[in-house]
Amino acid sequence: MAKIWEGRFKKELDAEADRFNASISFDRRLFKHDVRSGLAHLKALKKAGIISAREAAQLTSGMKKVAKKEAAIDWPAYEDVHSAVEGELVKLTGDLGKKLHTGRSRNDLVATDTRMYMKEEMDNVKAGIRKLMASLVELAEKSQHIYMPGYTHLQHAQVVCAGQWLMAYFAMFKRDCDLFDFAQARADRLTLGCGALAGSNYPLDRTLIARETGFKNVAENSMDAVADRDFMLDFLYASSVCAAHLSRLAEELIIYGSNEFGFIEIDDAFATGSSIMPHKKNPDIPELIRGKTGKYFGGLMAGLTMMKGLPLAYNKDMQEDKVLMFSRLDELKETLSIAAKFMRNITIKQETINRQMADEFMYAVDIADYLVGKGLPFRESHRVVGSMVGYCVENNKRFTGLTLDELRSFSPKFAGAKERMEFMKLINPAESAAAKLTAGSTSPSSVKRQIAFGKKWLGKVKR
Amino acid sequence: MAKIWEGRFKKELDAEADRFNASISFDRRLFKHDVRSGLAHLKALKKAGIISAREAAQLTSGMKKVAKKEAAIDWPAYEDVHSAVEGELVKLTGDLGKKLHTGRSRNDLVATDTRMYMKEEMDNVKAGIRKLMASLVELAEKSQHIYMPGYTHLQHAQVVCAGQWLMAYFAMFKRDCDLFDFAQARADRLTLGCGALAGSNYPLDRTLIARETGFKNVAENSMDAVADRDFMLDFLYASSVCAAHLSRLAEELIIYGSNEFGFIEIDDAFATGSSIMPHKKNPDIPELIRGKTGKYFGGLMAGLTMMKGLPLAYNKDMQEDKVLMFSRLDELKETLSIAAKFMRNITIKQETINRQMADEFMYAVDIADYLVGKGLPFRESHRVVGSMVGYCVENNKRFTGLTLDELRSFSPKFAGAKERMEFMKLINPAESAAAKLTAGSTSPSSVKRQIAFGKKWLGKVKR
Amino acid sequence: MAKIWEGRFKKELDAEADRFNASISFDRRLFKHDVRSGLAHLKALKKAGIISAREAAQLTSGMKKVAKKEAAIDWPAYEDVHSAVEGELVKLTGDLGKKLHTGRSRNDLVATDTRMYMKEEMDNVKAGIRKLMASLVELAEKSQHIYMPGYTHLQHAQVVCAGQWLMAYFAMFKRDCDLFDFAQARADRLTLGCGALAGSNYPLDRTLIARETGFKNVAENSMDAVADRDFMLDFLYASSVCAAHLSRLAEELIIYGSNEFGFIEIDDAFATGSSIMPHKKNPDIPELIRGKTGKYFGGLMAGLTMMKGLPLAYNKDMQEDKVLMFSRLDELKETLSIAAKFMRNITIKQETINRQMADEFMYAVDIADYLVGKGLPFRESHRVVGSMVGYCVENNKRFTGLTLDELRSFSPKFAGAKERMEFMKLINPAESAAAKLTAGSTSPSSVKRQIAFGKKWLGKVKR
Amino acid sequence: MAKIWEGRFKKELDAEADRFNASISFDRRLFKHDVRSGLAHLKALKKAGIISAREAAQLTSGMKKVAKKEAAIDWPAYEDVHSAVEGELVKLTGDLGKKLHTGRSRNDLVATDTRMYMKEEMDNVKAGIRKLMASLVELAEKSQHIYMPGYTHLQHAQVVCAGQWLMAYFAMFKRDCDLFDFAQARADRLTLGCGALAGSNYPLDRTLIARETGFKNVAENSMDAVADRDFMLDFLYASSVCAAHLSRLAEELIIYGSNEFGFIEIDDAFATGSSIMPHKKNPDIPELIRGKTGKYFGGLMAGLTMMKGLPLAYNKDMQEDKVLMFSRLDELKETLSIAAKFMRNITIKQETINRQMADEFMYAVDIADYLVGKGLPFRESHRVVGSMVGYCVENNKRFTGLTLDELRSFSPKFAGAKERMEFMKLINPAESAAAKLTAGSTSPSSVKRQIAFGKKWLGKVKR
Repeated sequence: MAKIWEGRFKKELDAEADRFNASISFDRRLFKHDVRSGLAHLKALKKAGIISAREAAQLTSGMKKVAKKEAAIDWPAYEDVHSAVEGELVKLTGDLGKKLHTGRSRNDLVATDTRMYMKEEMDNVKAGIRKLMASLVELAEKSQHIYMPGYTHLQHAQVVCAGQWLMAYFAMFKRDCDLFDFAQARADRLTLGCGALAGSNYPLDRTLIARETGFKNVAENSMDAVADRDFMLDFLYASSVCAAHLSRLAEELIIYGSNEFGFIEIDDAFATGSSIMPHKKNPDIPELIRGKTGKYFGGLMAGLTMMKGLPLAYNKDMQEDKVLMFSRLDELKETLSIAAKFMRNITIKQETINRQMADEFMYAVDIADYLVGKGLPFRESHRVVGSMVGYCVENNKRFTGLTLDELRSFSPKFAGAKERMEFMKLINPAESAAAKLTAGSTSPSSVKRQIAFGKKWLGKVKR
Repeated sequence: MAKIWEGRFKKELDAEADRFNASISFDRRLFKHDVRSGLAHLKALKKAGIISAREAAQLTSGMKKVAKKEAAIDWPAYEDVHSAVEGELVKLTGDLGKKLHTGRSRNDLVATDTRMYMKEEMDNVKAGIRKLMASLVELAEKSQHIYMPGYTHLQHAQVVCAGQWLMAYFAMFKRDCDLFDFAQARADRLTLGCGALAGSNYPLDRTLIARETGFKNVAENSMDAVADRDFMLDFLYASSVCAAHLSRLAEELIIYGSNEFGFIEIDDAFATGSSIMPHKKNPDIPELIRGKTGKYFGGLMAGLTMMKGLPLAYNKDMQEDKVLMFSRLDELKETLSIAAKFMRNITIKQETINRQMADEFMYAVDIADYLVGKGLPFRESHRVVGSMVGYCVENNKRFTGLTLDELRSFSPKFAGAKERMEFMKLINPAESAAAKLTAGSTSPSSVKRQIAFGKKWLGKVKR
Repeated sequence: MAKIWEGRFKKELDAEADRFNASISFDRRLFKHDVRSGLAHLKALKKAGIISAREAAQLTSGMKKVAKKEAAIDWPAYEDVHSAVEGELVKLTGDLGKKLHTGRSRNDLVATDTRMYMKEEMDNVKAGIRKLMASLVELAEKSQHIYMPGYTHLQHAQVVCAGQWLMAYFAMFKRDCDLFDFAQARADRLTLGCGALAGSNYPLDRTLIARETGFKNVAENSMDAVADRDFMLDFLYASSVCAAHLSRLAEELIIYGSNEFGFIEIDDAFATGSSIMPHKKNPDIPELIRGKTGKYFGGLMAGLTMMKGLPLAYNKDMQEDKVLMFSRLDELKETLSIAAKFMRNITIKQETINRQMADEFMYAVDIADYLVGKGLPFRESHRVVGSMVGYCVENNKRFTGLTLDELRSFSPKFAGAKERMEFMKLINPAESAAAKLTAGSTSPSSVKRQIAFGKKWLGKVKR
Repeated sequence: MAKIWEGRFKKELDAEADRFNASISFDRRLFKHDVRSGLAHLKALKKAGIISAREAAQLTSGMKKVAKKEAAIDWPAYEDVHSAVEGELVKLTGDLGKKLHTGRSRNDLVATDTRMYMKEEMDNVKAGIRKLMASLVELAEKSQHIYMPGYTHLQHAQVVCAGQWLMAYFAMFKRDCDLFDFAQARADRLTLGCGALAGSNYPLDRTLIARETGFKNVAENSMDAVADRDFMLDFLYASSVCAAHLSRLAEELIIYGSNEFGFIEIDDAFATGSSIMPHKKNPDIPELIRGKTGKYFGGLMAGLTMMKGLPLAYNKDMQEDKVLMFSRLDELKETLSIAAKFMRNITIKQETINRQMADEFMYAVDIADYLVGKGLPFRESHRVVGSMVGYCVENNKRFTGLTLDELRSFSPKFAGAKERMEFMKLINPAESAAAKLTAGSTSPSSVKRQIAFGKKWLGKVKR
């Protein structure tokens, strides 16, 4: 098939090579953006006096007609989206259309189109993250009365509010929004006007083009502009971090949904069964979310490897950037959507959680701090409570089962009945949580504050 | 849509969750293999007395009909290929078809099908590699008279035969065949009969099933069998190494095809042009080959990450294995094919190579070894020749421009005219190559032997 | 500091560049191997007539003296281990020592030394894996009477023997031995005799050198030989797969050791505490094992990236191969050792496991298969048992709590008291396990067979 | 050895487990920061009334003494830096020192110390990048008169100024500064006050602590705070992108330094030789820079993998974060320093470049644009010039060798002698560069502007 560059070639491109080389199967999703950047380029050509006002009007009108016929284009006949848009314009405007590509190259054009596309889509990604964050806040708000074990090393550590647990993920995903903001800002740089690598022989007003295509910045060096794919890496990185956060949430949902934990129940509409085991109700959704994590890491590795050691300026290797970005983008949006829906359809099961709340060792720090209040240096009180734990384990006792004499044997600070009473009072989830006094802690008031802040933030961002 | 596991569920799967969960869009390519393993399973069911001979005959006949209607199946109506094959069999055989899944699980089934598929496809990959190897041998044979600079650190090192250069890649790709052989052997292990994870309640003869499905080995532990995806990793690793080798070849083709080197000319049918620069003839094919490398590395990273920290036995995360393998498989086959074709369409350009052959420093080792023959210890002769090089660089001279006096100033071993004559004779590509005496060296006879061996090997393997 | 290659240079290497360039800080661990390959090279030089029998004797004797003074060498004074060995030999033998490097290059030498080293060390890695396998078999043997829930999707699936669970890991690590065998065989290829890239001007008998250095094979192409680092990748890959297996074991140990599961107890000598929470006993060892997984994947990624797009033959980039291999090697050996020790110091806690064994849904497949025996097609019996499960969940009942009438309401196959009795008998771990009839299943006899085989295999391999 | 957490344990930690678990070998470099955060914590304890003003004064004075005895500490005797600092304080202040850890945990402490350390070190990294940028600007300024081929696809594309080439890298590294700024800002979040995961039982003023430790922000959720390592990933990512940019520069230096290109000459003090080839002068420095690239990608992969699927809150896996960061940090600083020095010691060789400047096809776009000026639509003029190129290739001609008749045969726009004269005038590097009219182009004035801006930027940042 005819190529826009065939002038110097004596033979047609081999059919297999043509297929291998063509990007039309994936870059046609840049159609809208190629039209938009084309329209901006026409304005610049007109301002620079390369085309007349009349030509500009005709070409602009033609381009708008091209925009409307997306569905009718014979896509596989073209090498890429840029050839397609130019080709269709020529069909509509004849020789005039052949002026479109004056002063630009596919090298600066494809970077511009892709940046426009990614900037737009990152808005969608962030909206998806915020939807998930909204699910989390909602569930946190509903669960404010629920206390649960907090874990370190997957061992019972201290009592926390369910809301604190959920708002931890809120904090992660909020950081991911920042990350995508950053990636988006880095993509916000116009490359058009840089030509193949050296700039253009025409005084094209790049600031005008930037304004027309919605770019805040203009790339400063033409060779770097066409050789740079940092914005691809930034997106792949942001996606990877977001995927890592999702994998942690998924892991906890899977563990918390196990028979042994039983902290959450998945709605039947979001679980699946087994072909052989009739009783199974499996957490396939979080497993798939977790299972896809590697694809993001792998995508980032692919992008980095692709750029390693590439000489300046443009190299065809970089055509793969779109394959990498588009696949991660599509899957991330899909995953965020299902994750948000999934979180709105789980039930936190207070009763089964309560089975674990019987573990009084989770109050060990509260007791140690109680002894600190009685004058013991912390490292000493830590040792005392450690011995109490050792004793309880050995004698199969709980803290509340310790007699005053037993308590006293660990420390004279347990002086009498009053101290034992104070000690007993510590062994209580609501007391323990409320006793946390630092900003950002798990105390109910702190969690409430986080939720309120979260809702406000979501409200503000969601224009 | 109805699911084969819906018995215990009160609600239908949410539509979005259904789409997220379903694998039918990619696992339907296992259709042929699911039928084959199904047929083998029927034999085992019959032998174990679970189904009668008559039932077996009917089901077998039904299954063969299913096999023929691949194109007619309403694929999106099914969750996965296993449900599809079972569902279609039930359509054809009624309640009898509901016996198919007796004693097996999708957990052991999908691993079996995938292993069968991959074993088969790795034959195709190896055939693709051999085709490329054949191109290399062919070109090596055609180029036996060509001498070129051999490089280390991309600096002229010593003279080599073009054939030696090409046969280096032959050696790499031969190793890749070994790697795929190994990956294939590791995949050659039947998992059917392991059930969901615990084995089956029926005395299914796994050796029989293995024979019927073409497996050499039978997995030894049922929990490991359904939890294991090493064979996926092996394939992704072998592909990555092969891709790394291809990237090296591609890099050299790109460098050797630069204006500065000019060692090779790409046929017009395998090069592309620029939308703005009329003169460009670009090596897009090797660039794309090089640019895709990262996707293999990334695929491997994705696979490894997916398996990290997965508890036994089957987890839904592992469903992504097929996505990873299939995409790499398809692209690798396509890439090998175009690489083979590309290599058959390049010309090695003796003349432009000869411009570089004027660099006499490439004979420095030959000269140092000459001095060794005259009695200098090698480290000493190295120093002598090093000084000669330094002198030449400073005085802008070539070795053959050195007078006897100059030579003698570096070493008395250059005793007289005879020695200068001997010295001059060393400065010759054919002499230098022929002087290499170790097995596997670049001497024409060694290259010839490698080519002969290569052709024989290809002939033998290619049944 | 003096360099063995300084002949042509007018200036000394910049001090910072010297540090950046030197490999002596990590390659000095190849000392023993550089001596050995040096001795072999001397034999070849003698056989080729390059050095006399007397010179060979003197140099050999000198080399053996060098071998003994490893501790006395001023290592930082040398650029690399090869310069060090040659330098020390020259110190001892004078000008004669300057003949050592005749006909060889650091390019072929370093690959030879590294391959020798890795071949040797992979024996140690395999010994480490086998030690861990021995711990697993030992624990499996001790635990033959323990039944536990088997999991898929981290949900109760079917009853399994603890031994089956442990032998699943045995099977994985056995495959890792195969993988290291393969990596070792791939490293088993002599590169010496290939010179810088072109071969050597001397008739060095590479078969002789291979024999003397313990190599089975001889690299076939000199350019490939010095450019190839597949053996590095093979090792990094094998380590990554092994690390992935270790991470799965670690994950299960962590989950099984949680308060909620309580399946295993870590010995106090292998657990650590918290600086603030006096009660904590944390599984730091398996967490660290899991946490190190990424370093293996990252090491492999580093190795692959390093090789991407490298032109032939040797490039200095490849010097990093040793850094990558040595660090993974050291950590893997350390990790395997601690893992083996850790496994010998855990207790499987039957009582807490038994809390979970009360979940009768784990017998769902056994019941479905019972109904198959009564004539129901499996897909039908699956549906029946699924409904029973749904009913039990809704009414908070267990299977054994179902009356005959209730049973009959699901299927007429529960015809009477006899059937109910048969049904009740199925709800039993020993019955369920023993009912598994396929090779490799979780039945006690199958587990016993696996253990016996495992012990025999370990005995045989452990010379 | 005694552990700060040993209270509940009946046995000492196994010696091998102790070694495996300890972090002191690498985290002792946080000493200064642990002291500083300790001092801030003491202020907060005092303000909260946990310790008296007198105790605070004694502890503060003790802590300052600890700070001074870094060299005297018996490091291997401690598990980690936090135990060391606390232990040394206790040695100096007795029981009083045991109050230090009141209300804090190693979980919130280690994150605080590491963030402080990394924030500080990222200043050093950025200083290193700016030093390299200064080398680039300096060389660009020196090379303003040099024209060279600009490449796309490693093929001659259009003429560029050497300064434009160098300033492309300046733009990349400037973006890397932004990336490290971002990573630094993300690390700028205090975690102290979050305790083990739940917050602290004391009203510690986290804003006060933040002020004292130099943090701008305070982590909002205690569980997230101790579970988060995004700042580690951000650093590893920024390093990877920077390494990718370095690898591109290195690749070009290697290619441009080849005999075939000969565009640059490396100073003898920054090149190395061969052990066998006396003439070699190898670009080991850029090769090592390129070769290290994978270690950054691998480090990032390791970090991401480490975090994948980790349940909240702190897990010991995360201890590896420091290993990953410190090794990349050290190597990056070293690499940037040598890269800056290397760039200051290369010579751009106008003469050898000029051999390539004879390629007149690099003016093809200028000619096409000339024809556009004569009224041809660009796509048409592209075709015309393409045919001219084809003709020249076939007939071994250059543009300037074409007669007027020949020119006219391609287009009537080459009407007469005047047009031929105009055409001839285009074939000139200075003309071509000066003709580039867009912002950021390769025109000398644009390059000058970039250099001026670069110098100003460097001056401003370098306080």
